[in-house]
Formats: sequence, structure tokens, C-alpha cells
Amino acid sequence: MDWNFYSICEAFTLLQMWPVFDVVHYILMALNMKRELSTSVAFAFERRHPLASWITTMLLCNAGPILVCLYLGKPLAIILKSPEKIAVSTLVWYAVNYVPGVFTLLTNRWITCLLVSAKEVQRVYGVYGGVQEASQLYSSYYVVLFTLGFIRGTASEIMMVFARLLAGIIKVHTAQTVSPNVFLFPSCLFKASALVSAMFCLEHYSYIQVNHSVLFSCTIAVLIYLRILMILGVIADPFVPFENLFCAIVFGGMWDAYKLVVRQDRKGTQANGAVHHQKMKTS
Amino acid sequence: MDWNFYSICEAFTLLQMWPVFDVVHYILMALNMKRELSTSVAFAFERRHPLASWITTMLLCNAGPILVCLYLGKPLAIILKSPEKIAVSTLVWYAVNYVPGVFTLLTNRWITCLLVSAKEVQRVYGVYGGVQEASQLYSSYYVVLFTLGFIRGTASEIMMVFARLLAGIIKVHTAQTVSPNVFLFPSCLFKASALVSAMFCLEHYSYIQVNHSVLFSCTIAVLIYLRILMILGVIADPFVPFENLFCAIVFGGMWDAYKLVVRQDRKGTQANGAVHHQKMKTS
Amino acid sequence: MDWNFYSICEAFTLLQMWPVFDVVHYILMALNMKRELSTSVAFAFERRHPLASWITTMLLCNAGPILVCLYLGKPLAIILKSPEKIAVSTLVWYAVNYVPGVFTLLTNRWITCLLVSAKEVQRVYGVYGGVQEASQLYSSYYVVLFTLGFIRGTASEIMMVFARLLAGIIKVHTAQTVSPNVFLFPSCLFKASALVSAMFCLEHYSYIQVNHSVLFSCTIAVLIYLRILMILGVIADPFVPFENLFCAIVFGGMWDAYKLVVRQDRKGTQANGAVHHQKMKTS
Repeated sequence: MDWNFYSICEAFTLLQMWPVFDVVHYILMALNMKRELSTSVAFAFERRHPLASWITTMLLCNAGPILVCLYLGKPLAIILKSPEKIAVSTLVWYAVNYVPGVFTLLTNRWITCLLVSAKEVQRVYGVYGGVQEASQLYSSYYVVLFTLGFIRGTASEIMMVFARLLAGIIKVHTAQTVSPNVFLFPSCLFKASALVSAMFCLEHYSYIQVNHSVLFSCTIAVLIYLRILMILGVIADPFVPFENLFCAIVFGGMWDAYKLVVRQDRKGTQANGAVHHQKMKTS
Repeated sequence: MDWNFYSICEAFTLLQMWPVFDVVHYILMALNMKRELSTSVAFAFERRHPLASWITTMLLCNAGPILVCLYLGKPLAIILKSPEKIAVSTLVWYAVNYVPGVFTLLTNRWITCLLVSAKEVQRVYGVYGGVQEASQLYSSYYVVLFTLGFIRGTASEIMMVFARLLAGIIKVHTAQTVSPNVFLFPSCLFKASALVSAMFCLEHYSYIQVNHSVLFSCTIAVLIYLRILMILGVIADPFVPFENLFCAIVFGGMWDAYKLVVRQDRKGTQANGAVHHQKMKTS
Repeated sequence: MDWNFYSICEAFTLLQMWPVFDVVHYILMALNMKRELSTSVAFAFERRHPLASWITTMLLCNAGPILVCLYLGKPLAIILKSPEKIAVSTLVWYAVNYVPGVFTLLTNRWITCLLVSAKEVQRVYGVYGGVQEASQLYSSYYVVLFTLGFIRGTASEIMMVFARLLAGIIKVHTAQTVSPNVFLFPSCLFKASALVSAMFCLEHYSYIQVNHSVLFSCTIAVLIYLRILMILGVIADPFVPFENLFCAIVFGGMWDAYKLVVRQDRKGTQANGAVHHQKMKTS
């Protein structure tokens, strides 16, 4: 086998997720949960409530399978069929939360870049797997395909709503703020998952007709590139400009401008009328 | 076909829900969610968090199918089989939230009367459909039939608990108040759904033996009549008098009266005893 | 049949849960919910919100079946197949909340001992039933067996999270406190359910090879003994000493000691180095 572009792309589609990529996923989930908890309370949550810390980390680690089970009406019990995954994620949780130095090590900028790269590979595999799984059951329903791919891509962020509830981290809304979650403040990964899932759906229905392994590998490459730029602080969320433009036009700006025009028009008419009236008076 | 009473009733049982009645349902759900959000926060929620506004409106619009799926153990994916419904409800959501004038137009008293009338037709169809669906699966279990009919009638109000959670609208309880939801403050429609579902269950088991189409049409007529009276401010919740009576007797009053009697009786006995004692002393 | 030890143990494994033990379960759930609500708000919750009080009590009474349905992917509707159970639990709820004297009577220390004894019998039956049910479906997956047994043992405590949500009893977290639930502050029964479920799993895989009825009866006896000692105030949570030891070693203490040693070692080396340096200077 010679190492041309296509064979490298092909190789990217044949990776095994377990154990390396899944372990990276568990590490990032444990880091996320620890960060979320430590920003919410002023004490060491994992020392005072180890069980809640473990349960919520497990929820995040298995968010994908849990939501897919609910979505496809399968028993939640099948998630627990692989005890080695639970054992490994427990080990990861333990190391991240209790072994001194591990958290500092893993949040090192360069190691984060490495972890995040592996995670993006796992995410794209998840989204593609979701679209494939849905297409076997509901082939002709494209919304179902899109949604399952999307859920597989961003499950842990959706699950965070419930993880916060179980961890007792409940914020109250006020007149000016809401209790934050991913639907209120969609992260970059939330939007990227939606885009990638949409792309694989288009590919499934043959609207995109490029070599599958090239598309797959390029998606991974773009995601890794974006995330590393974000970690290094070169760019913020790359979707924000498009989003702001879209929101400004569709959710407000367009109609505000329209209202302004209508009002000015009316005022103008009134003013003209007034002028006309005055003219008539003076003449 | 001559237009006598029976044929009109018959016609009422043969309506197609899609598209007119379902669109009305979507409009009312979008209005409900917008009202709920705008009474909770002081800023324009739908401008700052369009995604959360859309997701929660979709949850309300599809509350019936979602709860039925959970209740009957079906996959949630089947809700997404009809993309045209999602497209239409998204359009409705967009119009209600962003197009200026639409909200004002739709909350006009007379248009509300019209919308609510169509919604009550849709509600009665929902309840009847729920009872029918349950009777095919669990014919001999009347509680299952009642519950499914009831859920179909009032799903959006139950789903509001979760919609508020996802929208980050979380109130905290105090010593004197609780975070409100439909179970704490059951609305008129909540109670009406229960009654209508109970009635169709009784009909299913042949305890009510009137012409089905007459029963069906009269239920719709009564509900529309009540809702329009409520909108015009002629009556408040028509269940309140019965409810107050029932609660006063069963949940408190009866036992308070009993306790009072027992206490007075005891006091009386003591007083008698004291008098007797005094008498014995003086004698 | 002569009354030796084995025959008594055997008799303990052949009890019928319905109606006596289930009714005791309902009584304890109604008491729990009433206590939870009355400690949260300063007014008589069950008088102002009878529906929410009833719904949440029903949720707790049927927490086991509800969570098992979700776990095994069964329709929730099958819980409502037995109207007599709902009727009885409603009666129990009514008596506990409204009939004067009943609450005082049932919270009498000696009657509590009696009720709790019956409840522990019901709990052990539940856990064993859960392990058996799971073993028929997922025989080779020991985590599934353990989890189902555990869920059946402690379902009402998990369900309390959602019952509080539906009752509008939502506490907010602060920098120093979290909104409490069973995962944050695991009760004695939570831990006992885990232990008992683990034990029955070990027995299922023949790692424990004693007579089943002896094991079963002894488990019940030990649980009853512990609970009665707890009620009489002789002991607090019997797991706390082991837990404290375990937590101190595994979740913190071990690593704190290690860090201390490393730091002292480093300081020592530095100090030595400094002394050596000084020595070199003076010499």
C-alpha cells in the first residue's frame, strides 16, 4: 500500500474508538464536570460529595448512549453491558479528581490540544455512526437521521442540564439573567455537531457526491484545526460572525428596519400633511 | 344528505386535524411560550436566545406525541417522521416571535376566541384519539385508557415544567411560595381534560350509551362555550365552585369540624366535670 | 412441618408482598413526602396543593416500577394496570395527610419500628426481585443485575429529586451549599440497597454459596435490626465509620499525605542543600 492522499483518508475512516479515543472522551468529560462544579461552588465538591461527582461524570461520559436509548426507545440497561468502559471511566474520574498533578497536567495547553484532537475524531465518528444507525431504522426520514447524528455529537452538553440538577447546582433566573444551559448559550461544538450531522445526512441522500473517506477526514481535520486555534486563542467561536449576521437579519434587525421605515413613512406623511395644512392656512 | 342535527354532529367527528387545527395548536403553543417567557424575564428572550425559544416552543407543540411515546414505550424518533409539521410549527414560531404585529393581532380578543374554538376541537380529538389508542393496546385497563386520554388533552401544560427548565426559567421556593407548575395550580383545561377523558372512558365501557357523534360534538360545544365565556371575562374557572366545595369538605373542612366538635365535647366534659366538682365542693 | 431454623428462613422467602407489605410501603412513602414538604414550606402544603401532594406521593409509591420501566425500556403504561394499588395508595395518602391523628399515630416511635421492619422485608424482596428480573434478560451482564437490584431498593429516594421538582420545591445552590438530594447526601438505605444488591449478585454468580433462604432471612434480620437501632437513637448511620475511613484514604487523605511528604522532602533537600552551601561557605 502506497501512502497517497486517498489511502491516508481511508485509514482515517477505519480507526477503532475503543480504547484510546474513548478514554480521551472520558478524560475530557471528567475535566468538564470538575470545571463546571468548581466554578459553581467555593468548596472542593469532589471531596465533600464524591458520589455525586462520580454519578454526574458517568452521566456525561455515557450521555451519547443514554440519549440514543431514549431516542430509539431502547432499554437503558444496555448501556451497562460493558463493565470495562465503566471501570476505565471510573479510573479516569478518580485520577482527574483526586490524584494531585493530573488535573494540572491535563489542562496544560499542549496536552489539551492533543486531547481535543482525539476528541474531535471521536465526535465525527459518533455523528457518522448516529446517522448510519438511524438510516438503518428510519431511512426515509431525514429529520430523524439528522437529529440522531446531532445528538451523538453533542450529547454531553445536553446531558449537562440534568447533571447539574443531580449535582444540586441549580441557579435561579432573575429579571435580567437566565439559569444557563447549552440551549441558551449554544457552544461552538453544539453548532459544529449540527453542521457535521447535516453534512453526513446530505451525503447519505447523495446530495454531496465526493469520496466518503475524503469528506470524513477533511471534516475531522477542519474541526481539529478550529479547536486548536480556539485553544491557542487565535480565534473565538468561528460561527459567531455568521450567527450574528443571520440573527441580526432574521431575528430582529430586518423587522426593526421595516418598522422604522413604516414609522418614518407615516411620520413623513403626517409631516407632509401638516405642511400642506399650514400652506393652506397661510395661503 | 339533509342537514339535520345528527348529520351535523356526524360531520364534527370526521374533521381532519392536519393542517388547520394543528396550525392553530402551534399558534397557541407559540403564544403560550412567548407569554411565559416574557412574564419571567425583563428582556426580549426570543431575541437574545432564539434557539432556546425555538426548542421550548417545539417541545410544547409536540408535547402530546412526546409524552405518549414515553407512556407507551415507543421511540421518540417517530415524532420527527413528519418534517412538514416541524417546518410549519417553525414558521408559526417565527411569525409569532419576530414578525411585528402578528403577536398583537393574534392576541386580539376576537381572534383568540376563534383560535381557542379550533383548539378545543383539536383537544377533544386528541383525548378521544388517546383513549382509542390505549384501548387497542390495554383494553381492559381503564386507568391506562383514562391516563392516555388525559395526557393527550393536557400534554403541553405538563411539558411546560421541562420547557421552563430548558429555557433556564427556574424559580426557587420560599417558606410561603412554591415554584409554580400545573400540578400546583391546575388550570381549567387541566381539569376539563380529565373530565373529558373520563367521559370517553365511560363511553368506551358502555356506561354512557348515547349516540357517539352527539356526545362528541356536545363536548366540543361545551368546551368552546366555556372558553369563550372565560376569554370575554363573563366567568372565571367554572370548576372552582365545585372544587372549593369538594376541597373544603374532603381536604380539611370535614376534619377541622370534627376536631372542633371533639375539642368542644372534651371541653364541655371538662367543664361539666369542673361544675360537678364545684357542686360537690359547695355542697 | 417442624419449626426449625431452616423452615423459618424458608417461610421468610415465601411471603406475599400484596397487600400488607405494599401498604406499609405506601404509608412510609406518604409520611416521607409529607415530612419533605412540611420541612420545605411554612404553610400546610397538602391543603393548598392537594393535587401536587397526591401526584408526588404516587410518584414515590411507584418509583420502583417507574424506574424499572425506563431502565428496561418498557412502557410506563403497565404501571397503571393495577387500579387497586392506586386506590389503596390514594387512601393511604388521604389518611396520612388529612385524617387528624393518623400522622401523629404513625410517627409514634414503636409503630415506626413496626412499619420500618415490614418495609425492610419489602425492600429485600424488591432488590432480590430486581436481580432475578434482570438475570432473565441480561444474565451475563453483572452490572445490569446489580443496578436493577439497587434501583428497586432505593427508587423512592432517587425519585424524590423529580418529586421535589413537580412539587415546586426547588432550592438554589450557593457558594457554600448545594441543593440537596440523595446523590449528594446518600442515606443509610441508599448504601444498604447497594450492598444487598451486590450480595444477591454475588449469590447469583455462585460466589456466595450458602443456603439461599438463610442468606435472604439474615439480610432482612440485619436490616431490621439496624433500622430499629437507628430509630431508637442507639446508633447513627452504621456505614459512616467505614465510609469516613474509605473517603479519608482514597478521596483525599492519601494524596494529601503524599503531597505533604513530597513537599517536606523537597524542603528537606533544599534545607540540606542550604546547609551544605553554608558549610562550603564557612569552610
